[in-house]
Amino acid sequence: MAEITAKDIQRLRQEAGVGMMDAKQALVDANGDYEAAFQLLRERGKAKMAKRADREANEGVIGSYIHYQTGRPVIGVLVELVCETDFVAKSDEFRQVADDIAMHVSWSNPRWITRDQVDPAALEEEREIITKQAESEGKPADVIPRIVEGRLEAFYADNVLYEQKFVNPERFDGTVGDMVAALATKMGENISVRRVARLSVGS
Amino acid sequence: MAEITAKDIQRLRQEAGVGMMDAKQALVDANGDYEAAFQLLRERGKAKMAKRADREANEGVIGSYIHYQTGRPVIGVLVELVCETDFVAKSDEFRQVADDIAMHVSWSNPRWITRDQVDPAALEEEREIITKQAESEGKPADVIPRIVEGRLEAFYADNVLYEQKFVNPERFDGTVGDMVAALATKMGENISVRRVARLSVGS
Repeated sequence: MAEITAKDIQRLRQEAGVGMMDAKQALVDANGDYEAAFQLLRERGKAKMAKRADREANEGVIGSYIHYQTGRPVIGVLVELVCETDFVAKSDEFRQVADDIAMHVSWSNPRWITRDQVDPAALEEEREIITKQAESEGKPADVIPRIVEGRLEAFYADNVLYEQKFVNPERFDGTVGDMVAALATKMGENISVRRVARLSVGS
Repeated sequence: MAEITAKDIQRLRQEAGVGMMDAKQALVDANGDYEAAFQLLRERGKAKMAKRADREANEGVIGSYIHYQTGRPVIGVLVELVCETDFVAKSDEFRQVADDIAMHVSWSNPRWITRDQVDPAALEEEREIITKQAESEGKPADVIPRIVEGRLEAFYADNVLYEQKFVNPERFDGTVGDMVAALATKMGENISVRRVARLSVGS
């Protein structure tokens, strides 16, 4: 059996957002191969999430963040982060993530929470603009569809909360969607951002 | 010339929300008659407001309030209160009113800010319900329109922020609209609630 180090277990716990026993088991199952263990945890996490999605998420908190400019509150954000049980909703970590997402939103100002909420008309408009750009750059017609799809990914990353890189990589290095998924895995509950409100003075 | 007391000046300053010089001048012009002076100030205030309405209100703050239940943040409110100048926007009193309105909204949950924003379809529906109620109560047909209009006033007072009695009468005894108008008079600027956002967990 391959060697399983405490350091790998610790790293896996943090990066995959799972408990110590799950991290250790994954490393055992992957014969100590870190990347394979990480992949295993992702698959197990997804399987759990699929089972979990049936259960209702009616508990939660309102995360908030106020951004000040020259001492004045000029941007305010509210985030409804929901989960399944009162137990998770009242944990400090859950509340912290809700506040962190609100802080992120004050900076990133996303237009939608998830990709499937993107307004089809806005998407179509974006697709047309990108296509025309690619054409005017003189790209060959046969590669344009691939270029357009690539640039649409950038559009999603700019405008969809779950696809945005979290603003503070020291706290979490990944997208907001990854951050929510890691919390869900750790807590063992269906967790999601249900609504976001952002007000900014004069805009 | 009638006697003008310091007590009247003080009372007028508070109730009409004006500065000392304006209060004194109004009492002088009204020959010391308190009610007449108050009326004068209202008229002058309205005249000022009309002039003022042309000027743009692009400064302001985001007032906020978070309501906790068993230690958890379960309702969040943001209020954009706008004015004309940076000078007013950065005053403590302006910010306090913005936060007070947010606190009020967490409790009252209005559907609209002003009467003219009320959705015509919702108003029509309400009118029909009230009319049927009055009919089923056996009211004479000729008084029903007056009853309906009276009950519609109650509908506005329930659902329109500016027409709701402020939740803490010790701080301000009147509607939220009165509170905003008093602040505008005192500050000498066009002031209004431009947007409100309210999120409540699970609803």
